[in-house]
Amino acid sequence: MIDKVPSLDKLVHEFCKLPGVGPKTAQRLAYYVLRSSQGFADDFCNALQLVKDKIKECPQCYSYTEEEEICHYCSNPQRLNDVICVVEDPADITRIESSQAFKGRYHVLHGAISPLDGISPQDLKVQALIDRIQASKETPEEIREVILALDADLEGDTTVLYLAKILGQMNIKVSRIAHGVPIGGDIDFVDHRTLGRALENRIEL
Amino acid sequence: MIDKVPSLDKLVHEFCKLPGVGPKTAQRLAYYVLRSSQGFADDFCNALQLVKDKIKECPQCYSYTEEEEICHYCSNPQRLNDVICVVEDPADITRIESSQAFKGRYHVLHGAISPLDGISPQDLKVQALIDRIQASKETPEEIREVILALDADLEGDTTVLYLAKILGQMNIKVSRIAHGVPIGGDIDFVDHRTLGRALENRIEL
Repeated sequence: MIDKVPSLDKLVHEFCKLPGVGPKTAQRLAYYVLRSSQGFADDFCNALQLVKDKIKECPQCYSYTEEEEICHYCSNPQRLNDVICVVEDPADITRIESSQAFKGRYHVLHGAISPLDGISPQDLKVQALIDRIQASKETPEEIREVILALDADLEGDTTVLYLAKILGQMNIKVSRIAHGVPIGGDIDFVDHRTLGRALENRIEL
Repeated sequence: MIDKVPSLDKLVHEFCKLPGVGPKTAQRLAYYVLRSSQGFADDFCNALQLVKDKIKECPQCYSYTEEEEICHYCSNPQRLNDVICVVEDPADITRIESSQAFKGRYHVLHGAISPLDGISPQDLKVQALIDRIQASKETPEEIREVILALDADLEGDTTVLYLAKILGQMNIKVSRIAHGVPIGGDIDFVDHRTLGRALENRIEL
């Protein structure tokens, strides 16, 4: 069927390019588009083009911004200037914001160090972070702490070690978010490495 | 983050409309589009519009067709004319074709009878099927058998009963595809209703 209807085949092919979408899901989605109204396809197209046309990187934190030149987090005067939270991706900011536990500025690395994938510190916004901290030293808005909120995987760990070493020489406080048993989590289901870390970093009551 | 970048928010909203795509998946997909090239968005848009512009229903079997007026399966002279396989959706044809066990024509109902959802036989291509069988009686390409390949759920069963009753009065053979233990399936994992059906419809060796 599919190969007999080239347009449908093409849409299935496009859906397949999306992460986590296999051929069967792609086919289901393509049939859904086919059955839906013309307005749905138009809106979808419009949204795709808007994202590509309008969204740009914030020149300060490398998160995304649309209407303003610098992003909402960098321009908001209510946020603290002396603490920066370093994340791998812009999407991580949404997660941290939803915790409502951080009121400082952000810095997006756009990835993590991964020698296996050929990603070195030069491919990330590391130099920009160093420059940003250096530049703040001459202003009243000096950055005093950097919180590393990177993924708890091999690449994240490597990047944390690298940044801790570099930033440690800059006379600022460097911290890493805590790893341990998730809230609501059953100790039965927590892996031994997480449990080990939770014990190591136990907090006195 | 999301609410601070309206275009991204809009794309997440559009992805959310797709079946089986929740807010988190939609966000992941939207970020993927944002990171991808302009060409990717253009190709995707193009594919979406082509599907809506070019694909139409075959006036004979109600499957989809693009370049030809009637679809590939209806126009192929190599297929048998005297047997029709009735399916719920055009996508079902792909599955049946991949079995390579059927060489006749198709008829797509575009759904199944579901009183709970307010779908009656009038909402499906049932009358068109009856007309098609009637019309064939005066030609050398008379339809002699109708195979019902509908889903094995409540709606499919209802539709099978309804069609069996109506088509039974038309002096043609009506059959239903077999239900039983899937090939490669372990009897341990098969539910009792399927196993009951498999025993009932056992085949003498």
